[in-house]
Amino acid sequence: MTARKIIMLVLDGISDRPCAILGGRTPLQVAKKPILDKLAEEGICGIMDTIGPGVRPGSDTSHLSLLGYDPQVYYTGRGPLEAEGCGIHMESGMIGFRCNYATLGQNGTIIDRRAGRIHDTQALSMAIEEGVDLSPMNIELKFASGVGHRAALALRGKGLGANVTSNDPKEEGVVPQLVHPLSSKTTDKKTAAACNEFIQQAQHILNDHPVNERRVREGLLPANTVLLRGAGEMGHFESFQERYGLTGGVIAAATLVVGIGKVVGLRHIPVSGATGSVATNLKGKIDAAIHEIERNDFILLNIKGADEASHDGNAVEKKEFIERIDTFLNPLTELEDCLLVLCSDHTTPCSIKDHSADPVPVVIHGPDVRTDFVLKFDENSCASGGLHRIRGSSLMPILLDLINKTHKYGA
Amino acid sequence: MTARKIIMLVLDGISDRPCAILGGRTPLQVAKKPILDKLAEEGICGIMDTIGPGVRPGSDTSHLSLLGYDPQVYYTGRGPLEAEGCGIHMESGMIGFRCNYATLGQNGTIIDRRAGRIHDTQALSMAIEEGVDLSPMNIELKFASGVGHRAALALRGKGLGANVTSNDPKEEGVVPQLVHPLSSKTTDKKTAAACNEFIQQAQHILNDHPVNERRVREGLLPANTVLLRGAGEMGHFESFQERYGLTGGVIAAATLVVGIGKVVGLRHIPVSGATGSVATNLKGKIDAAIHEIERNDFILLNIKGADEASHDGNAVEKKEFIERIDTFLNPLTELEDCLLVLCSDHTTPCSIKDHSADPVPVVIHGPDVRTDFVLKFDENSCASGGLHRIRGSSLMPILLDLINKTHKYGA
Repeated sequence: MTARKIIMLVLDGISDRPCAILGGRTPLQVAKKPILDKLAEEGICGIMDTIGPGVRPGSDTSHLSLLGYDPQVYYTGRGPLEAEGCGIHMESGMIGFRCNYATLGQNGTIIDRRAGRIHDTQALSMAIEEGVDLSPMNIELKFASGVGHRAALALRGKGLGANVTSNDPKEEGVVPQLVHPLSSKTTDKKTAAACNEFIQQAQHILNDHPVNERRVREGLLPANTVLLRGAGEMGHFESFQERYGLTGGVIAAATLVVGIGKVVGLRHIPVSGATGSVATNLKGKIDAAIHEIERNDFILLNIKGADEASHDGNAVEKKEFIERIDTFLNPLTELEDCLLVLCSDHTTPCSIKDHSADPVPVVIHGPDVRTDFVLKFDENSCASGGLHRIRGSSLMPILLDLINKTHKYGA
Repeated sequence: MTARKIIMLVLDGISDRPCAILGGRTPLQVAKKPILDKLAEEGICGIMDTIGPGVRPGSDTSHLSLLGYDPQVYYTGRGPLEAEGCGIHMESGMIGFRCNYATLGQNGTIIDRRAGRIHDTQALSMAIEEGVDLSPMNIELKFASGVGHRAALALRGKGLGANVTSNDPKEEGVVPQLVHPLSSKTTDKKTAAACNEFIQQAQHILNDHPVNERRVREGLLPANTVLLRGAGEMGHFESFQERYGLTGGVIAAATLVVGIGKVVGLRHIPVSGATGSVATNLKGKIDAAIHEIERNDFILLNIKGADEASHDGNAVEKKEFIERIDTFLNPLTELEDCLLVLCSDHTTPCSIKDHSADPVPVVIHGPDVRTDFVLKFDENSCASGGLHRIRGSSLMPILLDLINKTHKYGA
């Protein structure tokens, strides 16, 4: 029987380098994870450079690559992808930004770049989207909340560029910068001017907003300004359906991953309690994947917690989270006519608390795969598997071939 | 001692995916094949994407790639290669087509797309080549028989395009289509018009031909029309001699492989009883290779039967054919100063009865190779070999280096 469907389980940042606190082994090597190991034993394994050897991936570029969209062609900055993930429908040519709500003090300096880790900012974002008026510049805008203090801005209009700076000084105790064009082009100048006008108008709206008045009364920091970064011009993405003939969905807490899924035409499948942290609702995400694969050809399922533990440098927490993931995975192993792919978007070594270019382990499990001799799901074991060392850009072609959806090249 | 010569043994479609009828193993894994395994044990092994990971190869594109001719540059459709294989000398710019002799009924519909599996069509093909006159269109034509009901057409003239449809409706009980241009270019229009004129004139000649009159008397289906497909414009191929400094020959039953060999300057070495099926004259082909390598530097030896069994979905027949091949191979292992390459052009899983993109096993056997730890010639065993996972385009450079025919890059 040849599989017809694919679940791509991206264990975000799961792989690592040897950790001193784990006796020179990686969290994957020390974790007790019988289901992950069973999948490796039954599947075909390898290691994967999600972009290329020695290329240190972002989460955005790596996910694009894993989905078969060459980031050299498709990646135009994180802003448009975050905006899509926040629910703004990005059309080709729109300029997108990642935003933070932040707190300005009386003297105009930044007191907190995350506005006291505010959440539930919908009312503020709606007020900004409705209240800020850039029509004198012939620009329309969209503004939407993301998770916590995060949000996104999108601009639509003629003659807008994306080559502009951020107003975020990346430190507290200083005044926000003006947004500057990074070229002498009128398009970039226009965008920079629009950003500065947007920020000024947004501050007026935020200053007077009841949510902030209440926060001040409650002794909380008000969200009285917006920091913009990651400017990019939205490109044209051929959809998964057009490109591969596959319907699909994306299950992820991270707005960035949701946004990437949505721009390639995957439907966002929200799961309550999915937080992107080690405390996320793993059962809910896996149940949703199993439910949704019934009526879709492809599910991108991103589990983020291990990456977060890695960014905190906490190898023990990472190991424990891997063990927790494992306890929920069994139902995924029982799906018929479905390939299950275990992989990651990048290595996040606890020792450097950031992404690295080390390849990630990958397993393809399901009908028709050439089971190899690998018995464990970890960085070293998978490196001796039958897939050898592949690139992220090869993953979708290999999967499409296994579900018999490739076109023959030649005759 | 460094080898001076190369025999490339392409075991067409030999590799597979796990087969249920073989207990989840592949035909290569279950076949008793002491000589193939000995070659793997003594040689250096690997797996190979003949074109690239996840790219499902045709036989034409994969053979071009194995011979070091990038199909993205050199592949212009199957027609010109089949024509060359049928004995037509294709010059750059000529338009080639694969053809079938077929049978039209009284009402003009196709009764049999293979004319009762006619063979010995030489007299018909000569009559067509001599009788059809396209000189009013300033076009010369060549027409030649292939194996069985197959044939090839080539057109030579100014202003001819190759972007035209087939007249083959691919089913019986319907009338053949007209050949249409696939663009508005006058070149494609001219070719389409020439094809339609060719078909009409050929039908007149075939209707009155003594071979067909005799077939009708004998109750056989007459070959009274020709179906054309696979149009392509012949490109320029640098010869093996020019490119690598090697003289060589091709031994194959499939006209396509013969054609590919010939366009790169390999001499066709005919072997009586070579059929391309599991009943082929294996001893004759291997004897011919051993004889010819005496006075050539390179022999391409294609054995097709396993691919045919795979297209029939017959894993047991495939396994038995592998065992039969093995019994004839010993003389190839005893050649001195010769590299023997075991490989395949593509995987043909019995489960899907068509080519797939799974990599194929490859072994290089002979003087100077770094013998690795692999003991068996099969998909999984070779995957742990010293060559790792290579591309078809790397095979000739690696072989040329082993016979000391590469140029140093740099100093």
